[in-house]
Amino acid sequence: MKPHSLALPLLAFVLAATGLRAEEGMWTFDNLPTKKISEKYGWAPDQAWLDHVRLSSLRFPGGSGSFVSQDGLVLTNHHVGRGWIQRVSSKEADYVKNGFSAATREQEIKVPGLELMTLVSMDNITERLAKAVKASLPEKEALKVRETEIEKIKKEMQEKSGLSCEHVTLYQGGEHWIYSYKKHTDVRLVFAPEQQIAFFGGDPDNFTFPRHNLDFSLFRVYENGKPYQPKHFLHWTHKGLKAGDLTFVTGHPGRTSRQDTLAQMVYSRDFAIPMRLKSMERRKEALVAYAKTSPEAARQVNTQIFGIENSIKAVTGYWSGLKDKEAMSRIEAAEKDLRAKVAKDAKLTASAGDSWAKIEAATQVAKGLSKDALNVGTANSTLLGHALTLVRLADEEALPSEKRLPEFSDANLKSLKTRVGVPSPYYKEQEVFLFTKGLEDAAVELGVDHPYVQAMLGGKSAAEVAKAAVEGSKLADPEARKALMAGGKKAIAESTDPMILLAKKLDPIGRELRKKQEDQVASVITEHGSRIAKARFAVYGKNTYPDATFTLRLTYGPVAEYKGNGTLIQPFTTFGGLYDRYDSWGGNEAKAHDGSWTLPQRWVKKRKALNPSVPFNFAHKVDIIGGNSGSPVIDMKGELVGLIFDGNIESLPGNYFYDEAVNRGVAVDARAIVHALDKVYGATGLVAELTGK
Amino acid sequence: MKPHSLALPLLAFVLAATGLRAEEGMWTFDNLPTKKISEKYGWAPDQAWLDHVRLSSLRFPGGSGSFVSQDGLVLTNHHVGRGWIQRVSSKEADYVKNGFSAATREQEIKVPGLELMTLVSMDNITERLAKAVKASLPEKEALKVRETEIEKIKKEMQEKSGLSCEHVTLYQGGEHWIYSYKKHTDVRLVFAPEQQIAFFGGDPDNFTFPRHNLDFSLFRVYENGKPYQPKHFLHWTHKGLKAGDLTFVTGHPGRTSRQDTLAQMVYSRDFAIPMRLKSMERRKEALVAYAKTSPEAARQVNTQIFGIENSIKAVTGYWSGLKDKEAMSRIEAAEKDLRAKVAKDAKLTASAGDSWAKIEAATQVAKGLSKDALNVGTANSTLLGHALTLVRLADEEALPSEKRLPEFSDANLKSLKTRVGVPSPYYKEQEVFLFTKGLEDAAVELGVDHPYVQAMLGGKSAAEVAKAAVEGSKLADPEARKALMAGGKKAIAESTDPMILLAKKLDPIGRELRKKQEDQVASVITEHGSRIAKARFAVYGKNTYPDATFTLRLTYGPVAEYKGNGTLIQPFTTFGGLYDRYDSWGGNEAKAHDGSWTLPQRWVKKRKALNPSVPFNFAHKVDIIGGNSGSPVIDMKGELVGLIFDGNIESLPGNYFYDEAVNRGVAVDARAIVHALDKVYGATGLVAELTGK
Repeated sequence: MKPHSLALPLLAFVLAATGLRAEEGMWTFDNLPTKKISEKYGWAPDQAWLDHVRLSSLRFPGGSGSFVSQDGLVLTNHHVGRGWIQRVSSKEADYVKNGFSAATREQEIKVPGLELMTLVSMDNITERLAKAVKASLPEKEALKVRETEIEKIKKEMQEKSGLSCEHVTLYQGGEHWIYSYKKHTDVRLVFAPEQQIAFFGGDPDNFTFPRHNLDFSLFRVYENGKPYQPKHFLHWTHKGLKAGDLTFVTGHPGRTSRQDTLAQMVYSRDFAIPMRLKSMERRKEALVAYAKTSPEAARQVNTQIFGIENSIKAVTGYWSGLKDKEAMSRIEAAEKDLRAKVAKDAKLTASAGDSWAKIEAATQVAKGLSKDALNVGTANSTLLGHALTLVRLADEEALPSEKRLPEFSDANLKSLKTRVGVPSPYYKEQEVFLFTKGLEDAAVELGVDHPYVQAMLGGKSAAEVAKAAVEGSKLADPEARKALMAGGKKAIAESTDPMILLAKKLDPIGRELRKKQEDQVASVITEHGSRIAKARFAVYGKNTYPDATFTLRLTYGPVAEYKGNGTLIQPFTTFGGLYDRYDSWGGNEAKAHDGSWTLPQRWVKKRKALNPSVPFNFAHKVDIIGGNSGSPVIDMKGELVGLIFDGNIESLPGNYFYDEAVNRGVAVDARAIVHALDKVYGATGLVAELTGK
Repeated sequence: MKPHSLALPLLAFVLAATGLRAEEGMWTFDNLPTKKISEKYGWAPDQAWLDHVRLSSLRFPGGSGSFVSQDGLVLTNHHVGRGWIQRVSSKEADYVKNGFSAATREQEIKVPGLELMTLVSMDNITERLAKAVKASLPEKEALKVRETEIEKIKKEMQEKSGLSCEHVTLYQGGEHWIYSYKKHTDVRLVFAPEQQIAFFGGDPDNFTFPRHNLDFSLFRVYENGKPYQPKHFLHWTHKGLKAGDLTFVTGHPGRTSRQDTLAQMVYSRDFAIPMRLKSMERRKEALVAYAKTSPEAARQVNTQIFGIENSIKAVTGYWSGLKDKEAMSRIEAAEKDLRAKVAKDAKLTASAGDSWAKIEAATQVAKGLSKDALNVGTANSTLLGHALTLVRLADEEALPSEKRLPEFSDANLKSLKTRVGVPSPYYKEQEVFLFTKGLEDAAVELGVDHPYVQAMLGGKSAAEVAKAAVEGSKLADPEARKALMAGGKKAIAESTDPMILLAKKLDPIGRELRKKQEDQVASVITEHGSRIAKARFAVYGKNTYPDATFTLRLTYGPVAEYKGNGTLIQPFTTFGGLYDRYDSWGGNEAKAHDGSWTLPQRWVKKRKALNPSVPFNFAHKVDIIGGNSGSPVIDMKGELVGLIFDGNIESLPGNYFYDEAVNRGVAVDARAIVHALDKVYGATGLVAELTGK
């Protein structure tokens, strides 16, 4: 551990508290601690290595992936691909349950709506923005001016490069960047194992280690109807990892809150998270209740149940971090140190002296709005979601881009309009069931006299309203949505579709709430978070990494055991361990815990063909979080050695702080993928494409 | 959970706090909750079943065991037998490391000093004692009178039955019993696996689950030079267990402190346990330092290192229980409830009203004595231990039994004198090394001016004193000890053996300390603990079990998973899981963590001969603690289905309270023993003897 500044002995504890732990960091590609890596491992990535892995990496919606062959084969997790696999499945061909393997290129299935992104360039626009936004402007105005300027820059760059440009705020606004992506829009499903082996151990094993998940799927990017030939892709390892080997992970960690102020963390711990968990539990209950109505209903919502259980377990883990007294006192000490340094500097005091107090006040406002924030919305209805988009689109499109709600800005408009018209599976019974439950819950939480509840129910029961609206609406049909979209303001004004009518009532209530949240909470936190971030730069320099923002990051560290469950947790698991866990829960006969540890029939049959000593999953010291799913694990040679699919339970407090002693990434071993493709699935063509053998 | 008394709603929490959890209890054979068992499982043991399992059970020194064949074959843990296996090992024939298998009865090795006990009868002497001890006597006198009466009863019973009779105090003195044992003194080693498979996973895995320990050894009891034919022995299961099956465990839990007052627990948590842990760490350091001097040194003390690491992990686990705030507040609530009920009853108030305060005061005295208690002694010297016994024996033997120190009473005298004359492995370098370290540590802890340190060192260095005393002493020779013993007071007075001279200096200091501890701590806690126990009987009845006392108990519960490590912990492990753990730590090549997860060569070679699905260990909901090691696990038919060898890490707080959610016993599956004997060791004769096949 290296302190950042003066090593006065009395300050040692506090400095340690502000310093980074070994292997900590979700580093941006412009600011890698290469010196530190080199000192510890005798080697560090050079620019060519970095460019190669960056251009081999992909962003999935909500996750990560990478190119792994010269013919555009893409590797990601099964659980990242799952929603898309489900989209191309049907009752008759359930590829989620039974897996999918294209025997020929012709059999590869195009996935509508799936877009993958390669990060081509990164431009720092912090200084240009600083010039545009005068320091004397009040918070709200500064925000507006900044947004306008950002939109302008994005548009310029987009027109120049033809790439898809996104504004990225790093260090709580301490830096502003434009990240430019190449977008791949023709993506086809190539291979998926059975859900049960990809998610072996189910919700109980989720976020834990030792683990036995073959959580991978393969897609292929096409361009002009032919397999895309990426200039950069990751070659498959010929050797594999052993304990202690250095690994790198490129991917898109979604969100961390490590730079939150203590007041924000306390607010999250004591109020926001418990409230959010309660709301998620309600949502899960609704889905489970629906799933119980029939096997077909269960098939429809299994992915959503998985998603919500996943979130509940993750948020519970984040929460446990905030309840860790020792860690919280480290955070408190670090904040105290920074505030003391700011207090001693007149310029910093002027800009950020009262920022902590302002943010704390904003959390109090958030508290007052939180019940509305959780309950005023589309009440689990997909159709009402479509309707609200259509209603708002008609209004927003008429405005200049910078005055619109951000999701309707020029940069986002095209994708949004495409999404409106994309067909997606729709089940009327499910829609009625979940909408009813959503409206009921909102009424319970907000009370029947709340304007939102009044607007939605108008004195009727939730069941009546939901049934009438769903049955009377045409919005399940993409063509009907497209027609309304094409008709603009007039079509919306004249529409008698009951979902449109509900959306019109919801719209002003939602806008008002959103305005309050933005003016009184978000803008304050953004502005003062940014001031604190700048003060932190001024005091400690930029020897650190920004909170996660679902943009490309690199993290590194060795394959490593850790202390857990009263013992030491092994760095690898094996195929033998998979069958141990299967046997020890009583196998497919016992179906323990909804069959969490059962195996697909193919895996039962092929058991003897497998080598029990081949590694299956491994744990390594990397700093990752949700969004990193599907990230490639890369060795020093730049070869693919594994595939991130999870963190251990001890990694979840990583939302707030990194604990190198026990925080571990959990990955599928590259050897397991090839061994399974070969021995279980007989997919020799894919094995050859991946390994060149 | 069943409350014990009036179910007034407002009292529900407190009553629940005093009630037992399902499956809780280390039951004595006279007071089994058969109604409760029967209500839950539709079956409960009858008297014949109970007699059968009791008479099949055995007490080992420090552990438990059972008869498992009609020819007197005895099953216990490897780690219970380990010290005895080491005793019959040598540098040339290291049966601990390499295992041992007697091909014929002639090859079975007699183990000197090993005595096994069968509990033949139990007699309640509470009333007889109550009559002998007048209520009006002051505490110290009452204690003396009680002890005299107990010695008298024991002697009477011993003479009448010819059995070995022991006084047993249950319920903190709420009940007094005489337990009469048949003693087996000719015990021979039959089979031991290699230490490395018996203790696979080493100290890291110790006290944890999932686990893969083949922790068993087989001995045989002989009588008159022939295999003993026990009337009762446990038949081997033909079926084995599955998750949820009911199990019973008979064995000798050593010590629990569940009826300690809150003040005692707080004293343990904040003072006694941290101090004890520190002392054990010092002892471990000394042993490890010695082990590093040579491979032979390591061989000599490995068992002791195992023992001390085991204790450190156990005590750390007990401590974690006391640091569990929720559990402690339950304990506090239960004490508050009992004290309130005592306060409302004039008679109970008279007897026990101030007992809690008295015990709390005694813990304060203990605090003052604790440093001396941990450091005044034989300073790790085996020879000084012998010397002190000889010095005291000469004095004590001259007194009537009831006036002696308890270990020299008539009941114990014969065994003690036998032990003095039994040869045991002795290594001079080790003795000098450990004695030096012991004296050094005492000097550091007590200070050089402490009378004990003065008496031992007399101004010299620890190294000088230890070297001179060890090299000058003849006490390593059993014949020399026997001669001094035979010579009595005169021989001791005239002896110039340096260890005898040190022991004479140590004796009065040790006696004075012991007297203080007995008069000011032990007698107060005994007397008032007993008064509280009687008050508890009066208030709640005898629907409970006494704290563990290293006497035979029965506990029961199903094979059961539990929550741990972020997921659910499987109820069984398998042979496949053993090899998974071996592989995933890198096998015999990697030798990770001092080779904790390496396998004996025989196990590497025989891997393919084994069925990976055969169960290896299992976890079940039974209430056990140290001393239960080697306990048979028995099914409803009274057949042997497993062998207790540990509890999980979550079982350790069981010293203070039982938590049915996560407290689990850990056992070797009976199927694993037979599968290994058959496929790895080719011990078909033993398999036939055990299973009748």
